[in-house]
Amino acid sequence: MSFNVEMNEKIQKIENELKKYIDELNCPAQLKEAMEYSLFTGGKRLRPVILLAVCEMLGGEDEAALPFAAALEMIHTYSLIHDDLPAMDDDDMRRGKPTNHKVFGEGIAILSGDALLNYAYEIMADFCLLHEEANMLEAMSKIARYAGASGMIGGQVMDIDLSNPTREQLAYIDANKTAKLFMAAFAAGALCAFRDEDTVAKMENIGRNFGLAFQLLDDITDNSPSLSVWGKENAEKALISLIWEVTANLKEIEGSDFLIDLVSYVAAKQ
Amino acid sequence: MSFNVEMNEKIQKIENELKKYIDELNCPAQLKEAMEYSLFTGGKRLRPVILLAVCEMLGGEDEAALPFAAALEMIHTYSLIHDDLPAMDDDDMRRGKPTNHKVFGEGIAILSGDALLNYAYEIMADFCLLHEEANMLEAMSKIARYAGASGMIGGQVMDIDLSNPTREQLAYIDANKTAKLFMAAFAAGALCAFRDEDTVAKMENIGRNFGLAFQLLDDITDNSPSLSVWGKENAEKALISLIWEVTANLKEIEGSDFLIDLVSYVAAKQ
Repeated sequence: MSFNVEMNEKIQKIENELKKYIDELNCPAQLKEAMEYSLFTGGKRLRPVILLAVCEMLGGEDEAALPFAAALEMIHTYSLIHDDLPAMDDDDMRRGKPTNHKVFGEGIAILSGDALLNYAYEIMADFCLLHEEANMLEAMSKIARYAGASGMIGGQVMDIDLSNPTREQLAYIDANKTAKLFMAAFAAGALCAFRDEDTVAKMENIGRNFGLAFQLLDDITDNSPSLSVWGKENAEKALISLIWEVTANLKEIEGSDFLIDLVSYVAAKQ
Repeated sequence: MSFNVEMNEKIQKIENELKKYIDELNCPAQLKEAMEYSLFTGGKRLRPVILLAVCEMLGGEDEAALPFAAALEMIHTYSLIHDDLPAMDDDDMRRGKPTNHKVFGEGIAILSGDALLNYAYEIMADFCLLHEEANMLEAMSKIARYAGASGMIGGQVMDIDLSNPTREQLAYIDANKTAKLFMAAFAAGALCAFRDEDTVAKMENIGRNFGLAFQLLDDITDNSPSLSVWGKENAEKALISLIWEVTANLKEIEGSDFLIDLVSYVAAKQ
Protein backbone atom coordinates (compact mmCIF):
# COMPACT_ATOMS: atom_id res chain seq x y z
CA MET A 1 0.00 0.00 0.00
CA SER A 2 1.39 3.44 -0.87
CA PHE A 3 2.09 5.82 1.99
CA ASN A 4 -0.63 8.26 0.96
CA VAL A 5 -3.30 5.59 0.76
CA GLU A 6 -2.31 4.22 4.16
CA MET A 7 -2.15 7.72 5.67
CA ASN A 8 -5.63 8.57 4.38
CA GLU A 9 -6.99 5.26 5.59
CA LYS A 10 -5.69 5.93 9.10
CA ILE A 11 -7.01 9.51 9.09
CA GLN A 12 -10.40 8.16 8.01
CA LYS A 13 -10.48 5.66 10.87
CA ILE A 14 -9.60 8.38 13.36
CA GLU A 15 -12.17 10.81 12.00
CA ASN A 16 -14.87 8.13 12.10
CA GLU A 17 -13.95 7.48 15.74
CA LEU A 18 -14.06 11.20 16.58
CA LYS A 19 -17.38 11.58 14.78
CA LYS A 20 -18.83 8.63 16.68
CA TYR A 21 -17.90 10.14 20.04
CA ILE A 22 -19.27 13.56 19.13
CA ASP A 23 -22.53 11.99 17.90
CA GLU A 24 -22.89 10.11 21.19
CA LEU A 25 -22.60 13.30 23.23
CA ASN A 26 -25.82 14.51 24.82
CA CYS A 27 -25.22 18.22 25.46
CA PRO A 28 -26.37 21.73 24.44
CA ALA A 29 -26.32 22.09 20.64
CA GLN A 30 -23.98 25.07 20.63
CA LEU A 31 -21.40 23.28 22.74
CA LYS A 32 -21.43 20.27 20.44
CA GLU A 33 -21.14 22.53 17.42
CA ALA A 34 -18.14 24.36 18.91
CA MET A 35 -16.38 21.10 19.86
CA GLU A 36 -17.03 19.65 16.41
CA TYR A 37 -15.96 22.83 14.63
CA SER A 38 -12.45 22.71 16.08
CA LEU A 39 -12.13 18.94 15.87
CA PHE A 40 -12.86 19.03 12.13
CA THR A 41 -10.97 21.97 10.67
CA GLY A 42 -8.42 20.12 8.60
CA GLY A 43 -5.88 19.05 11.22
CA LYS A 44 -3.15 16.70 9.98
CA ARG A 45 -4.06 14.15 12.73
CA LEU A 46 -0.34 13.46 13.24
CA ARG A 47 -0.54 12.46 16.90
CA PRO A 48 -3.43 9.98 16.57
CA VAL A 49 -2.01 8.57 13.30
CA ILE A 50 1.30 7.94 15.10
CA LEU A 51 -0.47 6.26 18.02
CA LEU A 52 -2.39 3.99 15.65
CA ALA A 53 0.67 3.25 13.48
CA VAL A 54 2.90 2.40 16.47
CA CYS A 55 0.23 0.05 17.82
CA GLU A 56 -0.08 -1.67 14.41
CA MET A 57 3.69 -1.88 13.95
CA LEU A 58 4.04 -3.59 17.32
CA GLY A 59 1.31 -6.12 16.60
CA GLY A 60 -1.60 -4.45 18.41
CA GLU A 61 -5.24 -4.04 17.34
CA ASP A 62 -6.83 -0.82 16.04
CA GLU A 63 -9.78 -1.42 18.36
CA ALA A 64 -7.55 -0.78 21.39
CA ALA A 65 -5.66 2.15 19.87
CA LEU A 66 -8.56 4.13 18.39
CA PRO A 67 -10.16 5.43 21.63
CA PHE A 68 -6.75 6.63 22.84
CA ALA A 69 -5.99 8.14 19.43
CA ALA A 70 -9.29 10.04 19.49
CA ALA A 71 -8.68 11.17 23.08
CA LEU A 72 -5.19 12.43 22.21
CA GLU A 73 -6.55 14.40 19.26
CA MET A 74 -9.20 15.95 21.54
CA ILE A 75 -6.46 17.00 23.98
CA HIS A 76 -4.40 18.50 21.15
CA THR A 77 -7.47 20.33 19.82
CA TYR A 78 -8.46 21.80 23.21
CA SER A 79 -4.90 23.10 23.63
CA LEU A 80 -5.14 24.88 20.27
CA ILE A 81 -8.53 26.45 21.14
CA HIS A 82 -7.17 27.81 24.42
CA ASP A 83 -3.83 28.83 22.82
CA ASP A 84 -5.67 30.91 20.21
CA LEU A 85 -7.61 32.94 22.83
CA PRO A 86 -6.96 36.70 23.11
CA ALA A 87 -5.36 36.16 26.56
CA MET A 88 -2.86 33.75 24.98
CA ASP A 89 -1.68 33.99 21.32
CA ASP A 90 -4.69 36.03 20.19
CA ASP A 91 -5.05 34.34 16.79
CA ASP A 92 -8.03 35.07 14.55
CA MET A 93 -7.34 32.31 12.03
CA ARG A 94 -6.19 28.70 12.18
CA ARG A 95 -5.77 26.44 9.15
CA GLY A 96 -7.44 29.10 6.99
CA LYS A 97 -10.59 29.29 9.10
CA PRO A 98 -11.66 31.64 11.92
CA THR A 99 -10.58 30.39 15.34
CA ASN A 100 -13.13 28.94 17.76
CA HIS A 101 -13.60 32.13 19.81
CA LYS A 102 -14.03 34.19 16.62
CA VAL A 103 -17.00 32.01 15.66
CA PHE A 104 -18.55 31.14 19.05
CA GLY A 105 -17.25 33.84 21.41
CA GLU A 106 -14.60 33.55 24.11
CA GLY A 107 -16.83 31.99 26.77
CA ILE A 108 -17.91 29.09 24.57
CA ALA A 109 -14.34 28.69 23.29
CA ILE A 110 -13.03 28.28 26.85
CA LEU A 111 -15.82 25.84 27.73
CA SER A 112 -15.63 23.82 24.51
CA GLY A 113 -11.88 23.42 25.15
CA ASP A 114 -12.63 22.29 28.71
CA ALA A 115 -15.25 19.89 27.37
CA LEU A 116 -12.86 18.31 24.85
CA LEU A 117 -10.20 17.83 27.53
CA ASN A 118 -12.73 16.31 29.91
CA TYR A 119 -14.28 14.11 27.19
CA ALA A 120 -10.85 12.70 26.33
CA TYR A 121 -10.62 11.31 29.85
CA GLU A 122 -14.21 10.12 29.88
CA ILE A 123 -13.54 8.12 26.71
CA MET A 124 -10.34 6.60 28.09
CA ALA A 125 -11.89 5.84 31.49
CA ASP A 126 -14.87 4.12 29.85
CA PHE A 127 -12.61 2.08 27.60
CA CYS A 128 -10.46 1.06 30.58
CA LEU A 129 -13.58 0.11 32.52
CA LEU A 130 -14.74 -2.07 29.64
CA HIS A 131 -11.43 -3.89 29.28
CA GLU A 132 -9.76 -3.70 32.70
CA GLU A 133 -6.22 -4.11 31.41
CA ALA A 134 -3.34 -2.51 33.34
CA ASN A 135 -1.59 -1.42 30.14
CA MET A 136 -4.66 0.56 29.01
CA LEU A 137 -4.71 2.39 32.34
CA GLU A 138 -1.01 3.03 31.94
CA ALA A 139 -1.64 4.56 28.51
CA MET A 140 -4.23 6.86 30.07
CA SER A 141 -1.91 7.75 32.96
CA LYS A 142 0.95 8.58 30.59
CA ILE A 143 -1.26 10.70 28.35
CA ALA A 144 -2.45 12.61 31.45
CA ARG A 145 1.11 13.16 32.72
CA TYR A 146 2.43 14.35 29.35
CA ALA A 147 -0.57 16.61 28.69
CA GLY A 148 -0.52 18.23 32.14
CA ALA A 149 1.32 20.74 34.33
CA SER A 150 4.55 18.73 34.18
CA GLY A 151 4.12 18.31 30.41
CA MET A 152 2.37 20.28 27.67
CA ILE A 153 0.65 22.80 29.95
CA GLY A 154 3.94 23.47 31.76
CA GLY A 155 5.48 24.30 28.38
CA GLN A 156 2.56 26.59 27.48
CA VAL A 157 2.93 28.47 30.78
CA MET A 158 6.66 28.96 30.25
CA ASP A 159 5.90 30.14 26.71
CA ILE A 160 3.43 32.91 27.60
CA ASP A 161 5.56 33.93 30.54
CA LEU A 162 8.72 34.85 28.63
CA SER A 163 9.41 37.44 25.97
CA ASN A 164 13.17 36.74 25.78
CA PRO A 165 13.71 33.12 26.75
CA THR A 166 17.19 31.77 27.50
CA ARG A 167 18.39 28.58 25.76
CA GLU A 168 17.45 26.57 28.82
CA GLN A 169 13.94 28.02 28.96
CA LEU A 170 13.45 27.54 25.22
CA ALA A 171 14.57 23.92 25.54
CA TYR A 172 11.97 23.46 28.30
CA ILE A 173 9.23 24.94 26.11
CA ASP A 174 10.12 22.74 23.11
CA ALA A 175 10.50 19.60 25.22
CA ASN A 176 7.16 20.13 26.91
CA LYS A 177 4.76 22.22 24.83
CA THR A 178 5.42 20.26 21.64
CA ALA A 179 7.33 17.04 22.29
CA LYS A 180 5.31 15.65 25.20
CA LEU A 181 2.16 14.87 23.19
CA PHE A 182 4.31 13.06 20.60
CA MET A 183 5.90 11.08 23.43
CA ALA A 184 2.40 10.26 24.61
CA ALA A 185 1.43 9.11 21.10
CA PHE A 186 4.42 6.76 20.72
CA ALA A 187 4.20 5.40 24.28
CA ALA A 188 0.43 4.89 24.25
CA GLY A 189 0.68 3.12 20.89
CA ALA A 190 3.12 0.62 22.41
CA LEU A 191 0.96 0.17 25.51
CA CYS A 192 -2.14 -0.48 23.40
CA ALA A 193 -0.13 -3.26 21.72
CA PHE A 194 0.56 -4.79 25.17
CA ARG A 195 4.30 -4.27 24.84
CA ASP A 196 6.84 -4.39 27.68
CA GLU A 197 8.39 -1.47 29.57
CA ASP A 198 11.58 -1.51 27.49
CA THR A 199 9.69 -1.14 24.22
CA VAL A 200 7.52 1.61 25.70
CA ALA A 201 10.66 3.49 26.80
CA LYS A 202 12.22 3.11 23.34
CA MET A 203 9.06 4.41 21.70
CA GLU A 204 8.95 7.33 24.11
CA ASN A 205 12.48 8.24 23.18
CA ILE A 206 11.62 8.20 19.47
CA GLY A 207 8.59 10.36 20.30
CA ARG A 208 10.75 12.90 22.12
CA ASN A 209 13.16 13.24 19.19
CA PHE A 210 10.32 13.33 16.68
CA GLY A 211 8.61 16.07 18.70
CA LEU A 212 11.78 18.15 18.99
CA ALA A 213 12.37 17.78 15.24
CA PHE A 214 8.77 18.79 14.55
CA GLN A 215 9.23 21.96 16.62
CA LEU A 216 12.55 22.85 14.95
CA LEU A 217 11.00 22.36 11.51
CA ASP A 218 8.21 24.70 12.54
CA ASP A 219 10.67 27.30 13.85
CA ILE A 220 12.81 27.13 10.69
CA THR A 221 9.82 27.34 8.33
CA ASP A 222 8.28 30.28 10.24
CA ASN A 223 11.69 31.90 10.80
CA SER A 224 10.67 32.03 14.48
CA PRO A 225 12.42 34.51 16.82
CA SER A 226 13.50 31.50 18.91
CA LEU A 227 15.91 30.63 16.06
CA SER A 228 18.12 33.55 17.10
CA VAL A 229 18.61 31.79 20.45
CA TRP A 230 19.86 28.59 18.80
CA GLY A 231 21.36 30.17 15.70
CA LYS A 232 19.78 29.05 12.41
CA GLU A 233 22.71 26.87 11.38
CA ASN A 234 22.76 25.05 14.72
CA ALA A 235 19.01 24.52 14.48
CA GLU A 236 19.35 22.97 11.03
CA LYS A 237 22.16 20.70 12.19
CA ALA A 238 20.14 19.61 15.23
CA LEU A 239 17.13 18.94 13.00
CA ILE A 240 19.10 16.70 10.63
CA SER A 241 20.60 14.79 13.52
CA LEU A 242 17.20 14.29 15.18
CA ILE A 243 15.57 13.05 11.98
CA TRP A 244 18.51 10.74 11.37
CA GLU A 245 18.19 9.28 14.86
CA VAL A 246 14.42 8.81 14.68
CA THR A 247 14.75 7.06 11.33
CA ALA A 248 17.65 4.88 12.52
CA ASN A 249 15.72 3.83 15.63
CA LEU A 250 12.63 3.02 13.60
CA LYS A 251 14.64 0.98 11.07
CA GLU A 252 15.56 -1.45 13.84
CA ILE A 253 11.90 -2.41 14.21
CA GLU A 254 10.08 -4.73 11.85
CA GLY A 255 7.15 -3.22 9.97
CA SER A 256 8.24 0.38 10.51
CA ASP A 257 7.97 1.44 6.85
CA PHE A 258 4.89 3.56 7.35
CA LEU A 259 6.35 5.47 10.30
CA ILE A 260 9.65 6.03 8.47
CA ASP A 261 7.69 7.42 5.51
CA LEU A 262 5.70 9.57 7.94
CA VAL A 263 8.92 11.18 9.17
CA SER A 264 9.88 12.11 5.58
CA TYR A 265 6.33 13.30 4.90
CA VAL A 266 6.40 15.62 7.92
CA ALA A 267 9.89 16.89 7.05
CA ALA A 268 8.85 17.63 3.46
CA LYS A 269 5.48 19.21 4.34
CA GLN A 270 6.78 21.98 6.54
CA MET B 1 -17.74 13.43 68.02
CA SER B 2 -19.46 16.77 67.44
CA PHE B 3 -20.32 17.73 63.87
CA ASN B 4 -17.88 20.63 63.78
CA VAL B 5 -14.98 18.53 64.99
CA GLU B 6 -15.74 15.82 62.45
CA MET B 7 -16.18 18.37 59.66
CA ASN B 8 -12.85 20.01 60.44
CA GLU B 9 -11.16 16.64 60.63
CA LYS B 10 -12.44 15.70 57.18
CA ILE B 11 -11.46 19.08 55.71
CA GLN B 12 -7.98 18.64 57.17
CA LYS B 13 -7.61 15.20 55.56
CA ILE B 14 -8.69 16.59 52.21
CA GLU B 15 -6.39 19.60 52.42
CA ASN B 16 -3.44 17.38 53.35
CA GLU B 17 -4.22 15.24 50.32
CA LEU B 18 -4.46 18.29 48.04
CA LYS B 19 -1.21 19.70 49.46
CA LYS B 20 0.55 16.37 48.88
CA TYR B 21 -0.46 16.29 45.21
CA ILE B 22 0.56 19.92 44.66
CA ASP B 23 3.94 19.29 46.32
CA GLU B 24 4.54 16.28 44.07
CA LEU B 25 3.99 18.34 40.94
CA ASN B 26 7.11 19.14 38.94
CA CYS B 27 6.17 22.19 36.87
CA PRO B 28 6.96 25.91 36.36
CA ALA B 29 6.79 27.75 39.70
CA GLN B 30 4.19 30.26 38.56
CA LEU B 31 1.84 27.52 37.39
CA LYS B 32 2.10 25.70 40.70
CA GLU B 33 1.53 28.95 42.57
CA ALA B 34 -1.60 29.73 40.53
CA MET B 35 -3.01 26.22 41.00
CA GLU B 36 -2.30 26.32 44.75
CA TYR B 37 -3.72 29.84 45.11
CA SER B 38 -7.16 28.82 43.90
CA LEU B 39 -7.12 25.43 45.62
CA PHE B 40 -6.49 27.08 48.99
CA THR B 41 -8.68 30.18 49.17
CA GLY B 42 -11.07 29.07 51.84
CA GLY B 43 -13.44 26.82 49.95
CA LYS B 44 -15.96 24.91 52.05
CA ARG B 45 -14.77 21.58 50.56
CA LEU B 46 -18.38 20.39 50.44
CA ARG B 47 -18.02 18.03 47.49
CA PRO B 48 -14.92 16.17 48.74
CA VAL B 49 -16.27 16.08 52.32
CA ILE B 50 -19.45 14.46 51.00
CA LEU B 51 -17.49 11.91 48.96
CA LEU B 52 -15.41 11.00 52.01
CA ALA B 53 -18.43 10.90 54.36
CA VAL B 54 -20.50 8.72 52.02
CA CYS B 55 -17.60 6.28 51.68
CA GLU B 56 -17.21 6.13 55.49
CA MET B 57 -20.94 5.78 56.06
CA LEU B 58 -21.05 2.82 53.67
CA GLY B 59 -18.12 1.07 55.32
CA GLY B 60 -15.32 2.13 52.94
CA GLU B 61 -11.78 3.29 53.67
CA ASP B 62 -10.53 6.88 53.53
CA GLU B 63 -7.48 5.69 51.61
CA ALA B 64 -9.68 4.84 48.62
CA ALA B 65 -11.88 7.93 48.86
CA LEU B 66 -9.22 10.61 49.34
CA PRO B 67 -7.69 10.62 45.83
CA PHE B 68 -11.16 10.91 44.30
CA ALA B 69 -12.13 13.59 46.83
CA ALA B 70 -9.02 15.61 45.94
CA ALA B 71 -9.66 15.13 42.22
CA LEU B 72 -13.27 16.28 42.56
CA GLU B 73 -12.18 19.41 44.44
CA MET B 74 -9.64 20.15 41.67
CA ILE B 75 -12.41 19.86 39.07
CA HIS B 76 -14.67 22.16 41.11
CA THR B 77 -11.81 24.66 41.53
CA TYR B 78 -10.90 24.73 37.82
CA SER B 79 -14.56 25.40 36.99
CA LEU B 80 -14.55 28.41 39.34
CA ILE B 81 -11.31 29.81 37.85
CA HIS B 82 -12.74 29.59 34.32
CA ASP B 83 -16.18 30.85 35.45
CA ASP B 84 -14.60 33.98 36.95
CA LEU B 85 -12.82 34.95 33.71
CA PRO B 86 -13.82 38.20 31.95
CA ALA B 87 -15.27 36.18 29.04
CA MET B 88 -17.59 34.39 31.50
CA ASP B 89 -18.86 35.94 34.79
CA ASP B 90 -16.06 38.55 34.94
CA ASP B 91 -15.62 38.40 38.72
CA ASP B 92 -12.76 40.25 40.41
CA MET B 93 -13.25 38.69 43.84
CA ARG B 94 -14.07 35.24 45.18
CA ARG B 95 -14.32 34.36 48.86
CA GLY B 96 -12.95 37.79 49.76
CA LYS B 97 -9.80 37.43 47.68
CA PRO B 98 -8.89 38.54 44.14
CA THR B 99 -9.78 35.92 41.53
CA ASN B 100 -7.05 33.90 39.85
CA HIS B 101 -6.85 36.01 36.68
CA LYS B 102 -6.68 39.20 38.75
CA VAL B 103 -3.54 37.88 40.45
CA PHE B 104 -1.84 35.88 37.67
CA GLY B 105 -3.34 37.27 34.45
CA GLU B 106 -5.89 35.66 32.15
CA GLY B 107 -3.48 33.40 30.28
CA ILE B 108 -2.16 31.76 33.44
CA ALA B 109 -5.70 31.55 34.85
CA ILE B 110 -6.89 29.62 31.78
CA LEU B 111 -3.87 27.31 31.89
CA SER B 112 -3.93 26.73 35.66
CA GLY B 113 -7.60 25.75 35.32
CA ASP B 114 -6.69 23.36 32.49
CA ALA B 115 -3.87 21.98 34.63
CA LEU B 116 -6.17 21.33 37.62
CA LEU B 117 -8.70 19.55 35.40
CA ASN B 118 -6.00 17.46 33.79
CA TYR B 119 -4.29 16.69 37.13
CA ALA B 120 -7.58 15.42 38.56
CA TYR B 121 -7.62 12.69 35.91
CA GLU B 122 -3.91 11.96 36.29
CA ILE B 123 -4.47 11.37 40.02
CA MET B 124 -7.48 9.11 39.44
CA ALA B 125 -5.80 7.18 36.61
CA ASP B 126 -2.70 6.58 38.74
CA PHE B 127 -4.79 5.42 41.68
CA CYS B 128 -6.78 3.08 39.44
CA LEU B 129 -3.54 1.74 37.95
CA LEU B 130 -2.24 1.01 41.44
CA HIS B 131 -5.37 -0.80 42.58
CA GLU B 132 -7.01 -2.17 39.43
CA GLU B 133 -10.50 -2.36 40.84
CA ALA B 134 -13.48 -1.98 38.50
CA ASN B 135 -15.39 0.14 41.01
CA MET B 136 -12.56 2.68 41.17
CA LEU B 137 -12.60 2.94 37.39
CA GLU B 138 -16.34 3.41 37.55
CA ALA B 139 -15.91 6.26 40.05
CA MET B 140 -13.52 7.97 37.62
CA SER B 141 -15.86 7.39 34.69
CA LYS B 142 -18.84 8.82 36.58
CA ILE B 143 -16.89 11.88 37.72
CA ALA B 144 -15.82 12.46 34.09
CA ARG B 145 -19.38 12.13 32.78
CA TYR B 146 -20.88 14.44 35.41
CA ALA B 147 -18.12 17.04 35.03
CA GLY B 148 -18.27 17.14 31.23
CA ALA B 149 -20.29 18.37 28.26
CA SER B 150 -23.32 16.30 29.27
CA GLY B 151 -22.93 17.46 32.88
CA MET B 152 -21.44 20.53 34.55
CA ILE B 153 -19.91 22.07 31.41
CA GLY B 154 -23.21 21.64 29.56
CA GLY B 155 -24.88 23.60 32.36
CA GLN B 156 -22.24 26.33 32.18
CA VAL B 157 -22.71 26.68 28.43
CA MET B 158 -26.48 26.98 28.80
CA ASP B 159 -25.91 29.55 31.54
CA ILE B 160 -23.70 31.95 29.54
CA ASP B 161 -25.84 31.47 26.51
CA LEU B 162 -29.11 32.77 27.94
CA SER B 163 -30.10 36.12 29.36
CA ASN B 164 -33.78 35.21 29.85
CA PRO B 165 -33.96 31.49 30.45
CA THR B 166 -37.25 29.61 30.35
CA ARG B 167 -38.19 27.31 33.23
CA GLU B 168 -36.99 24.35 31.22
CA GLN B 169 -33.64 25.92 30.48
CA LEU B 170 -33.19 27.04 34.08
CA ALA B 171 -33.95 23.52 35.27
CA TYR B 172 -31.28 22.23 32.86
CA ILE B 173 -28.74 24.72 34.22
CA ASP B 174 -29.47 23.85 37.87
CA ALA B 175 -29.51 20.11 37.22
CA ASN B 176 -26.20 20.23 35.39
CA LYS B 177 -24.06 23.19 36.42
CA THR B 178 -24.59 22.63 40.13
CA ALA B 179 -26.16 19.27 40.88
CA LYS B 180 -23.97 17.02 38.72
CA LEU B 181 -20.81 17.42 40.83
CA PHE B 182 -22.82 16.60 43.96
CA MET B 183 -24.17 13.52 42.20
CA ALA B 184 -20.57 12.63 41.39
CA ALA B 185 -19.57 13.09 45.05
CA PHE B 186 -22.34 10.83 46.39
CA ALA B 187 -21.91 8.17 43.68
CA ALA B 188 -18.11 8.07 43.85
CA GLY B 189 -18.26 7.78 47.66
CA ALA B 190 -20.43 4.67 47.32
CA LEU B 191 -18.18 3.20 44.62
CA CYS B 192 -15.08 3.77 46.77
CA ALA B 193 -16.85 1.74 49.46
CA PHE B 194 -17.31 -1.11 46.92
CA ARG B 195 -21.09 -0.85 47.10
CA ASP B 196 -23.53 -2.35 44.60
CA GLU B 197 -25.31 -0.63 41.71
CA ASP B 198 -28.51 -0.12 43.69
CA THR B 199 -26.76 1.73 46.50
CA VAL B 200 -24.83 3.84 43.98
CA ALA B 201 -28.11 4.79 42.27
CA LYS B 202 -29.69 5.70 45.62
CA MET B 203 -26.70 7.85 46.54
CA GLU B 204 -26.83 9.53 43.14
CA ASN B 205 -30.44 10.40 43.70
CA ILE B 206 -29.65 11.94 47.08
CA GLY B 207 -26.82 13.87 45.40
CA ARG B 208 -29.18 15.24 42.76
CA ASN B 209 -31.66 16.48 45.34
CA PHE B 210 -28.91 17.86 47.55
CA GLY B 211 -27.43 19.72 44.56
CA LEU B 212 -30.77 21.17 43.51
CA ALA B 213 -31.41 22.30 47.12
CA PHE B 214 -27.92 23.85 47.25
CA GLN B 215 -28.63 25.83 44.08
CA LEU B 216 -32.05 26.99 45.33
CA LEU B 217 -30.53 28.11 48.64
CA ASP B 218 -27.95 30.10 46.71
CA ASP B 219 -30.62 31.68 44.51
CA ILE B 220 -32.80 32.59 47.50
CA THR B 221 -29.87 34.03 49.51
CA ASP B 222 -28.59 36.09 46.54
CA ASN B 223 -32.12 37.00 45.45
CA SER B 224 -31.06 35.73 42.02
CA PRO B 225 -32.97 36.88 38.90
CA SER B 226 -33.73 33.21 38.25
CA LEU B 227 -36.12 33.34 41.23
CA SER B 228 -38.57 35.34 39.13
CA VAL B 229 -38.81 32.36 36.79
CA TRP B 230 -39.80 29.98 39.60
CA GLY B 231 -41.49 32.53 41.83
CA LYS B 232 -39.88 33.00 45.26
CA GLU B 233 -42.59 31.16 47.14
CA ASN B 234 -42.41 28.15 44.82
CA ALA B 235 -38.65 28.11 45.19
CA GLU B 236 -38.91 28.07 48.98
CA LYS B 237 -41.48 25.27 48.88
CA ALA B 238 -39.31 23.25 46.51
CA LEU B 239 -36.30 23.81 48.76
CA ILE B 240 -38.08 22.55 51.86
CA SER B 241 -39.35 19.50 50.04
CA LEU B 242 -35.87 18.68 48.64
CA ILE B 243 -34.21 19.02 52.05
CA TRP B 244 -36.93 16.87 53.59
CA GLU B 245 -36.40 14.17 50.96
CA VAL B 246 -32.60 14.18 51.26
CA THR B 247 -32.84 13.91 55.05
CA ALA B 248 -35.49 11.17 54.90
CA ASN B 249 -33.40 9.14 52.44
CA LEU B 250 -30.30 9.53 54.57
CA LYS B 251 -32.15 8.50 57.73
CA GLU B 252 -32.79 5.07 56.20
CA ILE B 253 -29.04 4.41 56.18
CA GLU B 254 -27.07 3.41 59.25
CA GLY B 255 -24.34 5.83 60.32
CA SER B 256 -25.75 8.77 58.38
CA ASP B 257 -25.65 11.24 61.29
CA PHE B 258 -22.78 13.27 59.93
CA LEU B 259 -24.35 13.67 56.49
CA ILE B 260 -27.73 14.61 58.00
CA ASP B 261 -25.97 17.24 60.10
CA LEU B 262 -24.14 18.42 56.98
CA VAL B 263 -27.47 19.08 55.26
CA SER B 264 -28.59 21.29 58.19
CA TYR B 265 -25.18 22.97 58.26
CA VAL B 266 -25.40 23.86 54.57
CA ALA B 267 -29.01 25.03 54.90
CA ALA B 268 -28.09 27.26 57.88
CA LYS B 269 -24.88 28.66 56.35
CA GLN B 270 -26.41 30.19 53.26
